[in-house]
Amino acid sequence: MRLKIRRIPLDTLRENVAVLASNCTALRPEAFQAFKRLEVQHDGRSIVASLDICHDRSMVGPDEIGLTEPAFRRMGLAEGETVSISPARSPQSLEYVRTKIGGETLNRHQIESIIQDIAGYRYSDMEIAAFLVACAGFLSTDELLHLTFAMAAAGTSLTWDAPIVVDKHCIGGIPGNRTSMIVVPIVAAHGFIMPKTSSRAITSPAGTADTMEVLARVDLTIDEMKEVVGECNACLVWGGHVNLSPADDILIGVERPLNLDTREQMVASIMSKKKSAGSTHLVIDLPLGPTAKVRDSMEALRLRKLFEFVADRMNLHVEIMVTDGTQPVGRGIGPVLEARDVMAVLANDASAPADLREKSFQLAARVIECDPAVRGGAGYERARHLLESGAAMASMQKIIEAQGRASSSPAPGPLTADILAHADGVVASVDCLRIAQLARLAGAPLDRGAGIDVLKRIGDKVETGEPLYRIYSAGEAHFNFAVEAAEQSNGFALAGAGIPAKALA
Amino acid sequence: MRLKIRRIPLDTLRENVAVLASNCTALRPEAFQAFKRLEVQHDGRSIVASLDICHDRSMVGPDEIGLTEPAFRRMGLAEGETVSISPARSPQSLEYVRTKIGGETLNRHQIESIIQDIAGYRYSDMEIAAFLVACAGFLSTDELLHLTFAMAAAGTSLTWDAPIVVDKHCIGGIPGNRTSMIVVPIVAAHGFIMPKTSSRAITSPAGTADTMEVLARVDLTIDEMKEVVGECNACLVWGGHVNLSPADDILIGVERPLNLDTREQMVASIMSKKKSAGSTHLVIDLPLGPTAKVRDSMEALRLRKLFEFVADRMNLHVEIMVTDGTQPVGRGIGPVLEARDVMAVLANDASAPADLREKSFQLAARVIECDPAVRGGAGYERARHLLESGAAMASMQKIIEAQGRASSSPAPGPLTADILAHADGVVASVDCLRIAQLARLAGAPLDRGAGIDVLKRIGDKVETGEPLYRIYSAGEAHFNFAVEAAEQSNGFALAGAGIPAKALA
Repeated sequence: MRLKIRRIPLDTLRENVAVLASNCTALRPEAFQAFKRLEVQHDGRSIVASLDICHDRSMVGPDEIGLTEPAFRRMGLAEGETVSISPARSPQSLEYVRTKIGGETLNRHQIESIIQDIAGYRYSDMEIAAFLVACAGFLSTDELLHLTFAMAAAGTSLTWDAPIVVDKHCIGGIPGNRTSMIVVPIVAAHGFIMPKTSSRAITSPAGTADTMEVLARVDLTIDEMKEVVGECNACLVWGGHVNLSPADDILIGVERPLNLDTREQMVASIMSKKKSAGSTHLVIDLPLGPTAKVRDSMEALRLRKLFEFVADRMNLHVEIMVTDGTQPVGRGIGPVLEARDVMAVLANDASAPADLREKSFQLAARVIECDPAVRGGAGYERARHLLESGAAMASMQKIIEAQGRASSSPAPGPLTADILAHADGVVASVDCLRIAQLARLAGAPLDRGAGIDVLKRIGDKVETGEPLYRIYSAGEAHFNFAVEAAEQSNGFALAGAGIPAKALA
Repeated sequence: MRLKIRRIPLDTLRENVAVLASNCTALRPEAFQAFKRLEVQHDGRSIVASLDICHDRSMVGPDEIGLTEPAFRRMGLAEGETVSISPARSPQSLEYVRTKIGGETLNRHQIESIIQDIAGYRYSDMEIAAFLVACAGFLSTDELLHLTFAMAAAGTSLTWDAPIVVDKHCIGGIPGNRTSMIVVPIVAAHGFIMPKTSSRAITSPAGTADTMEVLARVDLTIDEMKEVVGECNACLVWGGHVNLSPADDILIGVERPLNLDTREQMVASIMSKKKSAGSTHLVIDLPLGPTAKVRDSMEALRLRKLFEFVADRMNLHVEIMVTDGTQPVGRGIGPVLEARDVMAVLANDASAPADLREKSFQLAARVIECDPAVRGGAGYERARHLLESGAAMASMQKIIEAQGRASSSPAPGPLTADILAHADGVVASVDCLRIAQLARLAGAPLDRGAGIDVLKRIGDKVETGEPLYRIYSAGEAHFNFAVEAAEQSNGFALAGAGIPAKALA
């Protein structure tokens, strides 16, 4: 009943997958498929894995068990070591998932059990999807609170030796909206502690961590992060590496491909991370627009109330800023192009995108006004002063040095194509989802220089044949994907003289 | 942008999985993980697959795409042939799944789109889970109807040249309940057309197809099935092979590991198959008991009404028989042990399990009474006569011959262990789920001789050390799994003189 470990060089993402040979000597692997999951044990440590059966001894021999990359890593043993296997009982907490599917509400203990099992990689992707969909149907405010606290408890908790620890978060969905990289150095220059953790893109063309990585190292350990914050007041690091809410990272990995983005999951996701990060004051950027995550003011209101409800019970001061989410912010979309815009704003460059600069001031102002010493309404001027004086740029350079400056700075492209207007008119609307998708198809964020430069904004006049935006790609395959997709549907709607936008798009 | 196919000898069940090398020359495979799914094309044919990334060229080279067993089979090309790939757009119907998650009801077109995409293997397991959970929350009767018809339409439709085509179905959950193999030959001997298709076990220790396979071939084509029915009036074949409801087969594959078993899914599953099978009269066995699928009479009533609602709109005569589901039926559980019981009943063997015989008479009676020539109430005597006269056995032998008699008949075991009572008492209850699970752990249905012989029934007196049941296994690993599990919890509750069952179990 003992099998030797063999490493299967297959990245199955979140999910532990084990592989048994169909001619396995120890047992009939098909028998396990009914239970779907098996437990792999060695000396007290164990993992739960889904099972695939292999019909070829080149991959797994009859006395072996194959473990795909995540399973191999989590098992933590060398190839050739022996393990025993047994049918995995479904985690007890799956019973609670079924309770939830049945329409009942869950108590704290039940939600904690579910989150602990998810964080322990004991759920299959299917099971995670079942939990998320059940919660998407209905989640009471108490359940939301339990979920937020359970998710925070499953991760690392940071503590800071300061009475005020500020943070700023955007709910996402707007391409190019890279304000954190401007707000953080402004606020750090003001003297506040702002240990900013950001995500990498999952389905978007760039996360703040991806864009920051163009300039500096972002995969800092907690100790390194604390050192940087001690030196610079702030940091701009990747949150995934400091493990603030591992359950959330797993849930998001299933939510995104399913395109499930409920209010409650969003609040639990953001607030669990803020709780773990030790923030005391938080400003949330909530873009509102027809292709943004929040599409009408009723929905914005509901979301604001939910954030406030949870924040109050976390003893966190929260302010929600509803912002313009009708089109991308700045010009560049994709790590290199966004980093260029951010640095142009910080450098007071005349060519810097005015909307990115203006929005950053507004957000920074709200953060700075958390300072008891700053009068209400004086935050904006303070933010502008810190930027125009060069203090914010100095602060950013200090953060970049402290985190570790990137050795090379990649260029945009090199392949480029302009997407042209098919008619004369005025830009009536821009589809944020489509633009993000096209930038992603172009290769962002993995090709850091890939992405889009948006050349026209809502209200701009355009003539037939004038470029709406430019696509950048590093490789031909992605270049073709993006250009072909843009030709099918370019995401811009133009309005002519009295002609409705749709007819001309 | 063209990649050569390589076959990956990995059985990923329902799901198409493609494998790209991390150093793929054509594109960055990680870029696809955001979209989660990619489309593989060749000359007009295409499949949609989930993507795993491989970090080792032994599995997939930089100019290759690996296809796991189901993907390779469905693509239908030889290794080395070239294909092109592109990011798969989410099927349009996933938008409807999200609509359903949002609490709305779906119309016929939306449900048809979802079912067609599922039957076309265009959904990932996660996406199927999302659909099932959304439906488990709430499904209107109209939605149920659309679902049933859409599932039937996605499969093969059988037609029979007879005014009455009877069928019998059990909703499952009761181990050993192998009445179809007795009812079918009785009814065939009566002269009715009864083209019975059955399932193989998914999580149970045996399906009727598994047990019948001990005696005869069951993977008949539609033409072979028609020939057998022409010759014998009836057949007992595996439904999966004749593809009556391929979407249902896929849905069940996700429902079972998630342990999702809603009323509506059950009705849609059963009735879609009956519609495709061309039945005109159907008797449904609905076992009721504390560990059966239906646990109280309210639930049985609700289920009966749903079956009747759908059947009426399908123009199918349906009768629901609520039966005793408090304990296993017959003695044997597992293919060989069940086949032994069935043949003993058909042979009028004095040692045959009386409960299996009696229940089969009752079901056969209801089917036979669909005959306008049989008076109400006369079905039971007719059924008993057909069995006792040897006509049913002759009919069964004819079916076995026509389908193709199995060349060898495997024996039970050979490893056996008796599970003993820990106290004196009377059997108060038997946990059907636990007994099924133990038989499955013992290796059934894959090891055909594996399973359980139940030796005590509810109401039987037992003494300490007396065997409650016997476990049979073919291999040591499964034998140990089952015996250890039975020792932890044997599924029998005994009641002593005035002592509650639980205290003695």
